Amino acid sequence: MKIGVIGLGLIGGSIAKEIKLRSLSTIEVFGSDKKKEHEHEAIELGLIDTVVTVDEMLSICDTLVLGIPVSAIASELSGILDKTKNNQVIIDTGSTKKDICTSVSNHPNRGRFVAAHPLAGTEFSGPSAALIDLFKGKKNIICEKDKSDEDALKTALNLFQFLGMQSVYLNPEEHDRHMAYVSHLSHVSSFTLSLAVLEIEKDEKQIFNLASTGFESTARLAKSNAKTWGPIFDANAEYLLEAIDFYMDKMSEFRNLIATNQVHEMESLMTKANDIKRVLKGITLNN
Amino acid sequence: MKIGVIGLGLIGGSIAKEIKLRSLSTIEVFGSDKKKEHEHEAIELGLIDTVVTVDEMLSICDTLVLGIPVSAIASELSGILDKTKNNQVIIDTGSTKKDICTSVSNHPNRGRFVAAHPLAGTEFSGPSAALIDLFKGKKNIICEKDKSDEDALKTALNLFQFLGMQSVYLNPEEHDRHMAYVSHLSHVSSFTLSLAVLEIEKDEKQIFNLASTGFESTARLAKSNAKTWGPIFDANAEYLLEAIDFYMDKMSEFRNLIATNQVHEMESLMTKANDIKRVLKGITLNN
Repeated sequence: MKIGVIGLGLIGGSIAKEIKLRSLSTIEVFGSDKKKEHEHEAIELGLIDTVVTVDEMLSICDTLVLGIPVSAIASELSGILDKTKNNQVIIDTGSTKKDICTSVSNHPNRGRFVAAHPLAGTEFSGPSAALIDLFKGKKNIICEKDKSDEDALKTALNLFQFLGMQSVYLNPEEHDRHMAYVSHLSHVSSFTLSLAVLEIEKDEKQIFNLASTGFESTARLAKSNAKTWGPIFDANAEYLLEAIDFYMDKMSEFRNLIATNQVHEMESLMTKANDIKRVLKGITLNN
Repeated sequence: MKIGVIGLGLIGGSIAKEIKLRSLSTIEVFGSDKKKEHEHEAIELGLIDTVVTVDEMLSICDTLVLGIPVSAIASELSGILDKTKNNQVIIDTGSTKKDICTSVSNHPNRGRFVAAHPLAGTEFSGPSAALIDLFKGKKNIICEKDKSDEDALKTALNLFQFLGMQSVYLNPEEHDRHMAYVSHLSHVSSFTLSLAVLEIEKDEKQIFNLASTGFESTARLAKSNAKTWGPIFDANAEYLLEAIDFYMDKMSEFRNLIATNQVHEMESLMTKANDIKRVLKGITLNN
């Protein structure tokens, strides 16, 4: 069996790594990346066997996995499907799904494509960020499963199961709306926190001295790759703007309680926020 | 030697635990808490030897440590100093320092007090949250050291060194201003994220299914104790409001780039935010 991975960063690289190091049977892994240095690194790190072009990949591989930015998936997927044969499967891993699904909704080879989003990641990027067990115990979302051919869907489900993931089904709109709240908004708030603190605290030594683990945790996502997240925010702008506005309203509410010394009301609001414990319990168990 | 701890929560409880479990010489630890159940729990968990009233503590103990909310420290410290003898030392651990230092600035026994803020914590609270090694490798801030008697300061430095902390000196204004940015703002943004997501995502099952480690990390501080943080936000309102306004300006800037599809500019902003990596490196090393 031959698998091709387009985009050898955190997600594509980690999938390649699992296949190379954990497969029972011998699977050849081919890789392609716009950055030559990523291709070299992926070979050196043993994530892939051979560097090929996307066209070569399409002529040799059974399954192709796309680990490129969502804007690149949306613009390149249709061209890839043009060249996809009936025994090949194309699986994407993009963090937005509406734009990607729409880009190929009327494509004659739509059935060969499975729209997926494995919910895993770290704040690091590039082939060196590839991790074994990144996906283990996490959820994978598949959109428009009825538009994928049965065998293509089965291939994708097998891959995600091999990665240790449980697949769940959502439509692209639901996916993007939920992601705006539980993932993209977290990233925006973390990037914003970092920008605010870096700009105000000109004296960096003080940040170093005074920031503790609480700040580290809240600002962690601000280390994330700009080239990955720019296209995600752009593709999910509608729902993300809704989420940001809602967040800013909540913060204004908080701000006004602080400005008017309403300690009791602040505490009520925080006690309400504490309820996230119950919800997060499930996540922590998953890791 | 006899040490008394007033407030047996995360901070007071952890200090008591370290002294009880890690001291070379035998030190008797006395404890007091407004909540009777905390006192019982502290005895059961072996954090303290004996429950006493604050007045009893003042008549028996050499050193008293205050681990109560900042508003309680500010209102009770003066009364405690009224009864403090010349061979006793009072050390607080409050997350704000201006209000506390001001409350006793003209007290005849000011010299017996050391204004401290050990920069450590978790999102949990109460005696059961007490942790060994909570303070290890972290920074402790001491304010107005020149207002403390030399022997009192030495006692406090010894205690924090015993806890594994390095003490640094700041004036109360500097302390509160820096904390607004590197700690209190993180908490406000985390509480706000939790409130926004809980309210929008009425269907909680989806949060559970879709939230991944990124959300968990950013929302972690939203689990923090409302009764601790209400008084902190109130005491540091001036600087915190400045920080919140600055944060909201930054978020609006981000929002506008998303609303106008300026992907490149978004990416520049995120690349700027990525610089937090360099700053956070030091924190991670400290843990």
